[in-house]
Amino acid sequence: MKKTLLYAQSGGVTAVINATAAAVIRAAREDARIGQVLAARNGILGALDEDLIDTAVLSPEALVQLAHTPGGAFGSCRFDLDDPARNPAQYDRLFDVFAAHQVGFFLYNGGNGSMDVITRLSAEARRRAYPLVCVGVPKTIDNDLMHTDFSPGFGSAAKYVATSMLEAGLDLQAMASRVGRAFVLEVMGRNAGWVAAATALAGRDDREPPHLVLMPEVLLDEQALLQRVEAIVSRHGFCAITVSEGIRNLKGEAVMEQSRDSKGHVQLGGAGQCITRMITRHFGFKSHWAIPDYLQRSAGHLVSATDHTLAGAVGQAAVRFALDGLDGMMVSIRRLSDRPYRWQLEPVPCASVGNLERTLPAEFIREDGFHVTDRARAFLQPLVEGEVPPPFSGGLPVYLRFSFTSLPRRLPVLQTD
Amino acid sequence: MKKTLLYAQSGGVTAVINATAAAVIRAAREDARIGQVLAARNGILGALDEDLIDTAVLSPEALVQLAHTPGGAFGSCRFDLDDPARNPAQYDRLFDVFAAHQVGFFLYNGGNGSMDVITRLSAEARRRAYPLVCVGVPKTIDNDLMHTDFSPGFGSAAKYVATSMLEAGLDLQAMASRVGRAFVLEVMGRNAGWVAAATALAGRDDREPPHLVLMPEVLLDEQALLQRVEAIVSRHGFCAITVSEGIRNLKGEAVMEQSRDSKGHVQLGGAGQCITRMITRHFGFKSHWAIPDYLQRSAGHLVSATDHTLAGAVGQAAVRFALDGLDGMMVSIRRLSDRPYRWQLEPVPCASVGNLERTLPAEFIREDGFHVTDRARAFLQPLVEGEVPPPFSGGLPVYLRFSFTSLPRRLPVLQTD
Repeated sequence: MKKTLLYAQSGGVTAVINATAAAVIRAAREDARIGQVLAARNGILGALDEDLIDTAVLSPEALVQLAHTPGGAFGSCRFDLDDPARNPAQYDRLFDVFAAHQVGFFLYNGGNGSMDVITRLSAEARRRAYPLVCVGVPKTIDNDLMHTDFSPGFGSAAKYVATSMLEAGLDLQAMASRVGRAFVLEVMGRNAGWVAAATALAGRDDREPPHLVLMPEVLLDEQALLQRVEAIVSRHGFCAITVSEGIRNLKGEAVMEQSRDSKGHVQLGGAGQCITRMITRHFGFKSHWAIPDYLQRSAGHLVSATDHTLAGAVGQAAVRFALDGLDGMMVSIRRLSDRPYRWQLEPVPCASVGNLERTLPAEFIREDGFHVTDRARAFLQPLVEGEVPPPFSGGLPVYLRFSFTSLPRRLPVLQTD
Repeated sequence: MKKTLLYAQSGGVTAVINATAAAVIRAAREDARIGQVLAARNGILGALDEDLIDTAVLSPEALVQLAHTPGGAFGSCRFDLDDPARNPAQYDRLFDVFAAHQVGFFLYNGGNGSMDVITRLSAEARRRAYPLVCVGVPKTIDNDLMHTDFSPGFGSAAKYVATSMLEAGLDLQAMASRVGRAFVLEVMGRNAGWVAAATALAGRDDREPPHLVLMPEVLLDEQALLQRVEAIVSRHGFCAITVSEGIRNLKGEAVMEQSRDSKGHVQLGGAGQCITRMITRHFGFKSHWAIPDYLQRSAGHLVSATDHTLAGAVGQAAVRFALDGLDGMMVSIRRLSDRPYRWQLEPVPCASVGNLERTLPAEFIREDGFHVTDRARAFLQPLVEGEVPPPFSGGLPVYLRFSFTSLPRRLPVLQTD
């Protein structure tokens, strides 16, 4: 009997997660052992709610469009499953939904939290003797997943932030005044500095923007920072700095600006704002900061071809892994060479990935902690290479506009409080 | 005798101001009446300092690269000339520099402040009987110049912010939760809402992001805003809002968050941050804000073809105007039709442009003040159309890397204090 394949997206979405979705759907349609290809709306929450979408509504042409559409077509969530011993009802419900839709394959496309969901579901399916193969599909712009060369989504975010730093650096250079000027680009990364490190690709070396890269792996010595800014401004007339949102000071405290508004509410300014103000206060010259926020992970117009290729490849491989019964495994990218970038896909246990964080290795961080090394550049370079622009119409990218109808329920509505 | 043409860039730079520079240099090289083609470093400051660059160092191939390189190749400034009656020495110096380098044509590429410089210089040249033709070349992402259909630089900024809103909107839609979510994009525009209005092109109507567009032309009723956010979130699950940096509240005060840090320093949070926090405080759900800052005016990778074409055309026309003796005139774009976008270039007196600001006309703003009208969409649409991507190498745009040597001085160094 044919089994249903259920796919879901989780965590912060990326510019290429839908390329993975399109590849999963295409590969699943091609195999006779798979019946319906469903997507859960908003990740595992959609599975709990029995809020399921039949991807058969997507024509081959729509799948082509989907593959270059940023955002998560089926919705995402930030939700961890409970321990099955403490909340068996949650798992009862999930397996009821799986059974009601003949789900035999579950593919979860997410980060380290999602890999933990796979591990739990896989173990619980075995315990219940429910025939389910669970496969993890990597995705995160943070690039903090263990045991994979990189996580699809990161390459495009890296390309976006490096391009942004290159372009802002040219602007800054033109606007530099005799008294100096600074520019701070705050990028995502609470605990891992991969996105920040990628901005280094904007310059051939640290004499070109970014002059400084502040990563969460290094506790920030604020006095040392100010000394470096002074030296850079006296040499170049301006200073461009990348700041990870998650940097901490020598005391280990988040670099944030805590202040109170006129009504007494505590306000937390971000790291970029805080560093910019510290520089302005110290030197007195004008400074700017930019916070691309969602823009850095949704820039479908500036996707890396390497990233896009791998996003598709991990989706296709996930279906193959599922059919091969590689339960509890994540599709992992193994790098075979830097130039040209060569890779192969391998299964790694989700249990060795889930809820762990891969930060920048020490050899990627310059000894003084204020920039990256040539090894980091060599690692990052292939991940941003190649362009796969979407079609444009009327001056804007043409993306798939989606509004999916849910399948009719087969089970009573879940009562939540 | 051949005369020198002196070109300079002023004010905030754009993604296409160098396309204007390249066109000026090319056109000037072609005319036998023009000898050297010089650029002043950092706008009129370079003319005062006799800090001049011989553009002959730029090969035809370098000019091709220059034309798609963002930032201002020759440096910019924010500097107004004094009243000649009060500071004649400033003008003595300028005309000494002009005379020392046989400058007969001065082209100033900037915004409304620059057009005022042209007016002053032109009048003073006449008074001194110095043979000089001054021509203004429009440029500003703010699009606040009078008497021109638009200002080159705006079209590309508009394309960038509309694309960013489109992409962030897809991300937001995927991350929307049952409790709601908001996203605020803060764009440039202190007094004029053109850039904010352009983000409206991301959606076909106000049911797609941006759901709300806050422009400085409309005093913000904060209670009305919260009511609208509530209605939008209950309908769509999320709300995407564009905020001009210069919005003001019903009392006419800048919408900024004034707060004090732990050391008692007064901090001003920007409009985007302020609106985001207002929404979060009121509704309790998670919200994000993005501030593209320099990124929106330097995105050479996402230039509008209309904008790029016109940036070149105004540069070429400025040389023609100069040779025709159209002293004190600015090159103005006149729109002949929307679809297809047809235009012609005409001279308008810089005196009718200088130090004035063109804000959004009332018919471009929706009656309730929270969005734009179809007339605004029809006006904006052609300005973002067409793509002229730069070449890429190693995953990043290839831009001209410039570091120009100054010409040897012919005059003593200006002593400033």
